[in-house]
Amino acid sequence: MSREISKDEVEARLRAIGAERYHDKHPFHRMLHDGECNPDQVRAWVINRWAYQAGIPMKDAAFLSRCTDPDMRREWRSRIEDHDGGVHEGGGIRRWLKLAEAVGLNPDYVASGVGVLPATQFAVDAYIRYVRDMPLLQAVASSLTELFAPKIHEERIAGLFKHYDFANPDSMSYFQKRLTEAPKDVAYGLAWVLDHADTEEKAQMACDALTFKTDVLWAQLDALHSAYVVPARIPPGAWQPGQGMA
Amino acid sequence: MSREISKDEVEARLRAIGAERYHDKHPFHRMLHDGECNPDQVRAWVINRWAYQAGIPMKDAAFLSRCTDPDMRREWRSRIEDHDGGVHEGGGIRRWLKLAEAVGLNPDYVASGVGVLPATQFAVDAYIRYVRDMPLLQAVASSLTELFAPKIHEERIAGLFKHYDFANPDSMSYFQKRLTEAPKDVAYGLAWVLDHADTEEKAQMACDALTFKTDVLWAQLDALHSAYVVPARIPPGAWQPGQGMA
Repeated sequence: MSREISKDEVEARLRAIGAERYHDKHPFHRMLHDGECNPDQVRAWVINRWAYQAGIPMKDAAFLSRCTDPDMRREWRSRIEDHDGGVHEGGGIRRWLKLAEAVGLNPDYVASGVGVLPATQFAVDAYIRYVRDMPLLQAVASSLTELFAPKIHEERIAGLFKHYDFANPDSMSYFQKRLTEAPKDVAYGLAWVLDHADTEEKAQMACDALTFKTDVLWAQLDALHSAYVVPARIPPGAWQPGQGMA
Repeated sequence: MSREISKDEVEARLRAIGAERYHDKHPFHRMLHDGECNPDQVRAWVINRWAYQAGIPMKDAAFLSRCTDPDMRREWRSRIEDHDGGVHEGGGIRRWLKLAEAVGLNPDYVASGVGVLPATQFAVDAYIRYVRDMPLLQAVASSLTELFAPKIHEERIAGLFKHYDFANPDSMSYFQKRLTEAPKDVAYGLAWVLDHADTEEKAQMACDALTFKTDVLWAQLDALHSAYVVPARIPPGAWQPGQGMA
């Protein structure tokens, strides 16, 4: 039986969502990459983005917990390994804490999660829940923001090196490493989604999932901008400049 | 065996959380109640707060779904009845849609949930999930923001009548009705929490739950302020002024 919709068409629709809604368009990222963030705004970003990093292996574990295909689980589990690594060398989360140290934060404070904006945590938890509860096609498709990640990581590496003293190969190792990890993950996820989204209805489900995920990312930057960019309104209990310093 | 901590002490701690963190302190509410919101800002509030109203009976159903005590279920189920009502007369959600009509919105648009800020929905969903998954004491304690609701509803009724043409007994019936519903609900919830939070550890759990809930409410107003108050940054896909009008 022929497909109701071509793979090229589905891929084009997915990429159009990134072109329109990926968080590289958010004003906070433009500030960050152009060197317009002050040190406390960079710290607020590091603290809050940590909550997202810390949630990713839990999200991937939620995925494994519902995935009945051992081949797929074998492929997918490398995502957890990438983030957690081994006891000695660590993984992506530990590399993120290198960045925390480089911007003057106490990495234990950052890793405690104290001071994370509630809105950040709600968005991260929404993503974990989505991957655990929604149809498998949508759980996979929600990971496809990685299609757009290498470009933003390249911009970020260049922008941070150019504008900020804290940028060095050690502090930037998280992003450097993602340049090779993300394309490997997304090649598998995209091929799987294109194989399975073979009807108009399923293509729309995949697009809805990717749209949801762009909302998860955008909401985190909105919360950051609202709390820490003038006119700043830091919510009760969230990180205040000066807290959690090394 | 004597209690490790008195009921008065636990109640005082809970009330202190409200005094410090309840969303009556948020600048958006001050704008709203002082007549400083323009019609589109009021509409944005009505659209987004609808998502919260619509989530409340699902939250209460999540509570019933884990509550093993029929007496407690009998007490608690009136919350669902208050919000949903009967087919003909409706309940709190339908009263909310009266307000939507009064501010010029199409109630079907509001009830569709299209245009709700993703951050609002993440916060609402976080609350439903919390009540479903956390220890029962915390599920109950998270409802205790109702302790502080009558005061804000009174301020709101007075402020909206004073400053906005759309306020009339019909459009304000949601708040008017909550003035009698909320105290009945919270009297039961508070007595239950005070009975059960008889150790320092459990008192702290109850306080954590109430703090979480204040975060849920505050995050919704932060998202609203960020999206619709100058300098407004409306996220992709969220309501734009002019959409969904009657």
